[in-house]
Amino acid sequence: MLSERAKRGKAIRDAAFGRAGLATWEELNEIAPVHANAILEYCFGTIWNRPQLDLKTRELIVIAAGAAQDLPEEVEVHVRGALNRGASREEIVETIVQCAPYIGFPKTNHALRAAKRVLDQWEKREDWKSI
Amino acid sequence: MLSERAKRGKAIRDAAFGRAGLATWEELNEIAPVHANAILEYCFGTIWNRPQLDLKTRELIVIAAGAAQDLPEEVEVHVRGALNRGASREEIVETIVQCAPYIGFPKTNHALRAAKRVLDQWEKREDWKSI
Amino acid sequence: MLSERAKRGKAIRDAAFGRAGLATWEELNEIAPVHANAILEYCFGTIWNRPQLDLKTRELIVIAAGAAQDLPEEVEVHVRGALNRGASREEIVETIVQCAPYIGFPKTNHALRAAKRVLDQWEKREDWKSI
Amino acid sequence: MLSERAKRGKAIRDAAFGRAGLATWEELNEIAPVHANAILEYCFGTIWNRPQLDLKTRELIVIAAGAAQDLPEEVEVHVRGALNRGASREEIVETIVQCAPYIGFPKTNHALRAAKRVLDQWEKREDWKSI
Amino acid sequence: MLSERAKRGKAIRDAAFGRAGLATWEELNEIAPVHANAILEYCFGTIWNRPQLDLKTRELIVIAAGAAQDLPEEVEVHVRGALNRGASREEIVETIVQCAPYIGFPKTNHALRAAKRVLDQWEKREDWKSI
Amino acid sequence: MLSERAKRGKAIRDAAFGRAGLATWEELNEIAPVHANAILEYCFGTIWNRPQLDLKTRELIVIAAGAAQDLPEEVEVHVRGALNRGASREEIVETIVQCAPYIGFPKTNHALRAAKRVLDQWEKREDWKSI
Repeated sequence: MLSERAKRGKAIRDAAFGRAGLATWEELNEIAPVHANAILEYCFGTIWNRPQLDLKTRELIVIAAGAAQDLPEEVEVHVRGALNRGASREEIVETIVQCAPYIGFPKTNHALRAAKRVLDQWEKREDWKSI
Repeated sequence: MLSERAKRGKAIRDAAFGRAGLATWEELNEIAPVHANAILEYCFGTIWNRPQLDLKTRELIVIAAGAAQDLPEEVEVHVRGALNRGASREEIVETIVQCAPYIGFPKTNHALRAAKRVLDQWEKREDWKSI
Repeated sequence: MLSERAKRGKAIRDAAFGRAGLATWEELNEIAPVHANAILEYCFGTIWNRPQLDLKTRELIVIAAGAAQDLPEEVEVHVRGALNRGASREEIVETIVQCAPYIGFPKTNHALRAAKRVLDQWEKREDWKSI
Repeated sequence: MLSERAKRGKAIRDAAFGRAGLATWEELNEIAPVHANAILEYCFGTIWNRPQLDLKTRELIVIAAGAAQDLPEEVEVHVRGALNRGASREEIVETIVQCAPYIGFPKTNHALRAAKRVLDQWEKREDWKSI
Repeated sequence: MLSERAKRGKAIRDAAFGRAGLATWEELNEIAPVHANAILEYCFGTIWNRPQLDLKTRELIVIAAGAAQDLPEEVEVHVRGALNRGASREEIVETIVQCAPYIGFPKTNHALRAAKRVLDQWEKREDWKSI
Repeated sequence: MLSERAKRGKAIRDAAFGRAGLATWEELNEIAPVHANAILEYCFGTIWNRPQLDLKTRELIVIAAGAAQDLPEEVEVHVRGALNRGASREEIVETIVQCAPYIGFPKTNHALRAAKRVLDQWEKREDWKSI
């Protein structure tokens, strides 16, 4: 049974990542419910729910943090989030390009190719859109 | 002698970091002029000079990339840049808070303390303001 | 005003790190209260409060995670935590030695020197003991 | 021809990882015998062979160090080691959950999914058990 | 249309990696032309084009930097570069072995296995040779 | 009492780093003799003692691995080692410059400034020269 904060986090997550985002969370919930709950309650329900920055800017920031740690899967997920939050293709690509001198070219290449995988498929994937 | 692109980069850098930003660059220029030139020509003159994202958003993105790699000095420099580009104290702090679940708490703490060092001194430091 | 979970987290933190642990948290609370609250509520009040592993083993695990990310300040803090949770000097040092082949020697050296700074001072510092 | 220390290390490794652990080592031995020997002699024969910590705790520590560096393959191997050294499913999952606030959620997710891959297969895999 | 410096960089890249190196660059050029241009102009046309170190030594240095950041794909590419610049199998393997105590064994294992994938295929792959 | 291999490692270390290199090792030996012994026996006595690469090239490789992991103290130590093994100022600086596109500019800046600290002092420090 989810707390109010976790329910709110769930709604924020679903609007960001669509149905395709559920599978990973359910896998985590099966092995470590306390962590799956922290994703909803702390990460989405608390941090993503604040008014100081709009959701598009938050997605670009998390893309940068993902690229900087060489996490292309994370970049992929948040490129979908950025598109669902109204970012343009140009803004997303530029976020990664802006990181290049600060993170080095191999990580930049990985993030750009991750972004390309999403952008190339975006029109065809209903399960990536906000729910 | 600087290329046109490097001159443009120099102006972008000086507007972001003020006089205090010069010392590190000069130290790098003394030991590795080719790298110091790449900072001006490639990093500031090419990447920071593009229209796809505004300069404030770029600063927030670079703060995120710095926090994610545990580079508090880099965070410090770009908090100054963000302030010079019109970011509010709240937007800067929120950028780091947004990274917390994605980078872990120790790196978050380092970045927040770096931001605090700048924010606490901002009013008193003329050499941090745009030139 | 702290939630019940945050109060519980505060008690766990104070028993682990003593009075010396408060200053950093207060600095974080001044700049980013939402993050300072997550430290108490999520990190200490939720994760550290579970029965699946004893507190000494948790401290050793966090020392390993700190050493692996080259965070000597974090190692220092959790060496104090480990001592307050009943770990012996030998167990703490061995935790870092065990990491050496997996994290490389420079990070190992940093963690061992951080541990040494605590172990050399332990008897003299009342503010590091559980409160 | 292995030294006494390397032979001892080989026995420790085989008890930890079973027959499935041999293939990677043999691949390394083919390309870099000096490194393959260091794995047996220094890593397993020297470090893992000390009395200051029991083997189960060592496995949990190495899982934490692997998760903290985003090395899910390494986590997978040492989850098998932890099971062979008597750790419960709960202790293994909790080790990763304990790392979450210190390493961030993406690395935590990778480690938990790696652990799940082993735990889901454990009963079916004879080649993962101690030899 | 490429600048003179970018053309020179292209030639250096093609001599290092052969036809197989083109596909990744073209993918990057499709999504982020400014970054693809920086690869040619700044990375290959400026840095790789300097006389202070020979090309073989540069390849070994980049293999070390790739291994140290756990980038096995990058290691793979530059092992091909090192072979095309006259490095022996022994020098390449030794470069990674030399890194082992400084980067830890898991990253070393990944880099050695990446090197092995190239060395095992070298004689059979015409598209990896200099053009 | 040191093994033959550890004695050989000690001689290699002293020729690389001079008297100034001893203090850190002694500090490590006080807290973790097994690790201090591995430094001599495995790292210097085994790896650094092999004929496949000359000692100057090994120092450049370790500088690259240190820069790539943002370990400026490690860079500092091995710049001294490189100078003692006959590397020129230009070769050392170029090693770091070569890493820049692969590791990003902040880490490059840290490594260049670390190198500068050594190069600026080299003539004045007798305790940095080979013993």
